[in-house]
Amino acid sequence: SVNPDLASERQTASFSVEKLTAWLDGGAEHTRLRRAVVEVIERDPVFSRENQYFQSQNERYEVAVKKAVHLQKKMHEMGWTESGPEFKYIYRAVSGDVAFLLHSIFIRSISVLGSDKQIAKWIPLASQYKLIGSYAQTELGHGTYLQGLETTAVFDITTQEFILNTPKISAMKWWPGDMGRSATHTVVFAQLYVHGKCYGVHPFIVQIRSLQDHSLCPGIIAGDIGPKMNFEHIDNGYLMLQNVRVPRENMLNKFCEVQPDGTYVRRGSPKINYFTMTTVRISLISHEVVIPLMKACTIAIRYSVVRRQSKLKPGEQEAKILDYQTQQEKLLPQLAAAYAFRFIDDYLQELFNRGYGEIQRNNFDMLPELHALSSGFKALVSQFGTSGVKICLQACGGHGYSLLSGLPSLYTKILASCIYEGENTILLLQTARFLIKCFMAASTGQHIPPSVTYLAAVKPKKCPAKNKLDFLRPDIYTEAYQHTAVRLISSTAAKLQDLIQSGVKKYNAWNQCTVQLVQAVKAHCHYITVKNFVETVEKLETTTGIQKIMKHLCDLFALHGIFSNTGVFLHDGYISGEQMDMVTASYLDLLAIIRKDAVPLVDAFDFTDSSLNSALGSYDGQVYQRLYEWAQKSPTNKQMSPAYEKYLKPLLHNTLSKL
Amino acid sequence: SVNPDLASERQTASFSVEKLTAWLDGGAEHTRLRRAVVEVIERDPVFSRENQYFQSQNERYEVAVKKAVHLQKKMHEMGWTESGPEFKYIYRAVSGDVAFLLHSIFIRSISVLGSDKQIAKWIPLASQYKLIGSYAQTELGHGTYLQGLETTAVFDITTQEFILNTPKISAMKWWPGDMGRSATHTVVFAQLYVHGKCYGVHPFIVQIRSLQDHSLCPGIIAGDIGPKMNFEHIDNGYLMLQNVRVPRENMLNKFCEVQPDGTYVRRGSPKINYFTMTTVRISLISHEVVIPLMKACTIAIRYSVVRRQSKLKPGEQEAKILDYQTQQEKLLPQLAAAYAFRFIDDYLQELFNRGYGEIQRNNFDMLPELHALSSGFKALVSQFGTSGVKICLQACGGHGYSLLSGLPSLYTKILASCIYEGENTILLLQTARFLIKCFMAASTGQHIPPSVTYLAAVKPKKCPAKNKLDFLRPDIYTEAYQHTAVRLISSTAAKLQDLIQSGVKKYNAWNQCTVQLVQAVKAHCHYITVKNFVETVEKLETTTGIQKIMKHLCDLFALHGIFSNTGVFLHDGYISGEQMDMVTASYLDLLAIIRKDAVPLVDAFDFTDSSLNSALGSYDGQVYQRLYEWAQKSPTNKQMSPAYEKYLKPLLHNTLSKL
Repeated sequence: SVNPDLASERQTASFSVEKLTAWLDGGAEHTRLRRAVVEVIERDPVFSRENQYFQSQNERYEVAVKKAVHLQKKMHEMGWTESGPEFKYIYRAVSGDVAFLLHSIFIRSISVLGSDKQIAKWIPLASQYKLIGSYAQTELGHGTYLQGLETTAVFDITTQEFILNTPKISAMKWWPGDMGRSATHTVVFAQLYVHGKCYGVHPFIVQIRSLQDHSLCPGIIAGDIGPKMNFEHIDNGYLMLQNVRVPRENMLNKFCEVQPDGTYVRRGSPKINYFTMTTVRISLISHEVVIPLMKACTIAIRYSVVRRQSKLKPGEQEAKILDYQTQQEKLLPQLAAAYAFRFIDDYLQELFNRGYGEIQRNNFDMLPELHALSSGFKALVSQFGTSGVKICLQACGGHGYSLLSGLPSLYTKILASCIYEGENTILLLQTARFLIKCFMAASTGQHIPPSVTYLAAVKPKKCPAKNKLDFLRPDIYTEAYQHTAVRLISSTAAKLQDLIQSGVKKYNAWNQCTVQLVQAVKAHCHYITVKNFVETVEKLETTTGIQKIMKHLCDLFALHGIFSNTGVFLHDGYISGEQMDMVTASYLDLLAIIRKDAVPLVDAFDFTDSSLNSALGSYDGQVYQRLYEWAQKSPTNKQMSPAYEKYLKPLLHNTLSKL
Repeated sequence: SVNPDLASERQTASFSVEKLTAWLDGGAEHTRLRRAVVEVIERDPVFSRENQYFQSQNERYEVAVKKAVHLQKKMHEMGWTESGPEFKYIYRAVSGDVAFLLHSIFIRSISVLGSDKQIAKWIPLASQYKLIGSYAQTELGHGTYLQGLETTAVFDITTQEFILNTPKISAMKWWPGDMGRSATHTVVFAQLYVHGKCYGVHPFIVQIRSLQDHSLCPGIIAGDIGPKMNFEHIDNGYLMLQNVRVPRENMLNKFCEVQPDGTYVRRGSPKINYFTMTTVRISLISHEVVIPLMKACTIAIRYSVVRRQSKLKPGEQEAKILDYQTQQEKLLPQLAAAYAFRFIDDYLQELFNRGYGEIQRNNFDMLPELHALSSGFKALVSQFGTSGVKICLQACGGHGYSLLSGLPSLYTKILASCIYEGENTILLLQTARFLIKCFMAASTGQHIPPSVTYLAAVKPKKCPAKNKLDFLRPDIYTEAYQHTAVRLISSTAAKLQDLIQSGVKKYNAWNQCTVQLVQAVKAHCHYITVKNFVETVEKLETTTGIQKIMKHLCDLFALHGIFSNTGVFLHDGYISGEQMDMVTASYLDLLAIIRKDAVPLVDAFDFTDSSLNSALGSYDGQVYQRLYEWAQKSPTNKQMSPAYEKYLKPLLHNTLSKL
């Protein structure tokens, strides 16, 4: 039975939860299909996550491999294919802890970087799992800066082979997933040398383990890099290469080739490499950031109407903690952010699809903008998402700290999204280069991409809001964000130019502006997020309650951003201190309004209990009962610890040498 | 040998590291003593933490018990006593993972709340470990709000016993440390009923496990609450009581007693209970927050001069990542904060000692101020510290995410300090009540405690700084902090009064101000921290380099606080936009200055390699070598996973039913 404190929250929803779910899914048909996939997966005991929080790294790896192999069978059994409509729901349904994610990056890298011949040879082998692939790029000493990779591949003209080596310890491949224990093959990125000349980093297919008995191939030293904050189910690995020879055909050669006589040939635009990274960065936003944030909000908000603590009103029952303004102020902005980033994901997908279409027509014009947006948003969304999940965890007090809440594993996993696929600060600075360039171009009247044309527009000098209700007008707050983004970009561009004109070397000047550039890029992405939320709400039908509640969430997201960053809006007086008090008043008012629909708003995300895997967040709100039941299952309760016989008993019985 | 990139950083120190260490320790004598204790502990293999990152929850618990028992022997062997000068260095030397921390809280609670007779009976038993104690306060359904506890203790006049019960599942004791598997006794907090009347929460000594064979006593259901983000070495437990009878003498009765006929007698001031909590909150600041933050800074800063990534200057070697302004801006403010909070700890200790002296003279006047400061600073310092360790972790990129860096375990542990011993938001609001009360009193000319007298002083309206150098004047920035704290407190007090005068119920008005009250309290504590840092620097001799570098750190701490919260300083125009640009300029200048001494400044914390237990942070900077060596020891590399025979081999050999 549903806890009455949770049930009552659902009776007063201002909108239809089912309709909101369908809208988020892109139509009721999609909802049906998603639920069907989830049901098939969850009915199968192999995909159970029941014991996940009790498992060791070794156990989680074993289970992840088991699930990955079983998933292949399941897909075959169900007639699901990688190009079918069900495919996109599978990862969400399995909810993590599945191996071979790098196998698909192995496949993708060959598809993108390999010649037709290479594709014809390797893709069928990989697709049928006659080999297990990985992707060996990062080294102990080198991450995001690819040019610095130290692994070498020297062309031996006499044998028509590349000889791969790890010249020093910092050159060891380190972190690649699926490589520590699973992979038989990997794509190794190495500095190509032909006749003593270095041609930069290139990809090579290298077999690392025997297909017969999985033993390491000659010249290969490989293993697992050990424990991490999360991802225990993935065998992130290390790889050292000692005179490992691969045939000339194993260099992926769609864009560049070493011919038999050692001639190096480059074909087409190397920019396409960026496009692959762009794809990965955009795709991780939904799966690795938005969904975990939505889950954390679901858990924390449901718990916050079940948990009662202290008396709000003297003489009454203890209050639900979500009735406290401070708790609302922690959780509701995270809920609004989950929606905001869900819509940014749509925006980026749409942009990506258009860009991909152009590329297929050999038009690469959109690449810089796509690269800048995917980098900036990967950084912004992963940072907001990580901070949001942390807030949800802490808002659940002690119980949030228990693994059984589900929040610690969501948190330690999402935290990694700030680092992988490009460290966030480096990504933001890549976007900064694009913005500064566009700003300079705009100031000389040149054409600039659509997402930054606002940099060229003329802006009012003061915010026209007269009362707190004015700050619920999307034009008012969107303009404020736009003004701030322009101000931060233009003032940093001016500082950069001043430094250079005063004789500071360009690279030094850039370094001295980077703290401010990071701020400027965040303001830019924040502005686009608000603008996109506003546009999404405008497109909704006004007849349903959905438009109204989405408008509230949009307002909350926008005003929370101003409330949390008052300085950037106050700095030049665009918003006055008095107006800022209006922002605060409107912002705090919104908390109380959205609080009423908080549970329906997370219910609409439509996560099953098993996908949440949380003693605090289940649909029925039977929080305490579930915590107690789950704790019983912990290995710490399976038997008396050997510590008793070994240490406690001698201590208590004083058979130790006299203390 | 020391990595040359790290060695070179030490050659240019602007001060004597050894002298700074001695000053931090309170004199060279103390440094010598601390190092002697550390050496004894670290030489003993039982205290090794070598395998900590590879251990399961069961293994960590076992090791923690082993260490705790061994520590008793060691202390006896070395002639160390709990009142001796070595004692305060032991916990730091053992570096966590030791059991029976709650045993000492058991002892402390009896010492404070028990009668002389009870003390005479129980303390010797506990001190000699003839029993193992715990402290059972928190319940599944109740944490910080003690009045809400649901466990009952009914006095049975016929047998002169209390009958303890857990009336419902939410009343189960949940979280108490050392209780899940170790404790034989615990202090249970329960609602006292005599003749059907409730007298509120009281403490009772209850035996829960047999001293003979450790089996659970009749009526006791107890166990471990399962996996957590950290503290795997502690057996946080649950406890259900079913008609458990304890003699009348087991209620701790220094301050209140049930007499044989059922008469309830209260003695002395119950306020003293607050003093116990105050003690715990102040003592955790140093051990659980400042030291972990110092360790994280040591690891991240040493790593940041060893790690080279990308080229700063074209054509040169890749740059040390600490040479990037963005990396400086992440780490150096955390370093300054570690020093700032180290000094706040001194400030609170001094205040505490004075307060304790007064209490011994039966003067309880300082209690409200002590309670407010300990609550506010516990919250502020744990929040800053947690955020600081997180920044250090993320600043180390992928390698920071590996447990072998030492950072994840520091982080997941410090994170708990925001929750235990009073959830931070609740604590901040307790301090808020004190501040609002003092502010009201001050405005009517009443006497208020020393730490808040500034609320009554008349302030200038504008910051007088004329150029960026002015912002390196402590009087300028301290005044700015003071002004802001007064403004936030007074404006929130005004809002509160306006709401009440407009007819809003008092409790509702308070709730509607809580978000702003939290801001005000933080500003108050931030101001005191800056002021205290300034005063600490002023007391230093100006002849050594130490005063100079501490002044830089103090400036950095202060300006970072302004730079990160520009809005509160700009809001009423106290600091203008133009002045804020000066703050930014001075702040960024300081980063480059302090960067030069960053390594010496963390070296001065004087952590041994084994206390850091970090592959990234060792004194010699041999980062990559150590990561590789430590990874070898991981259980994931001990043998081929069963996953190969079970799943991978059939997949690769295609003996699975055709996919």
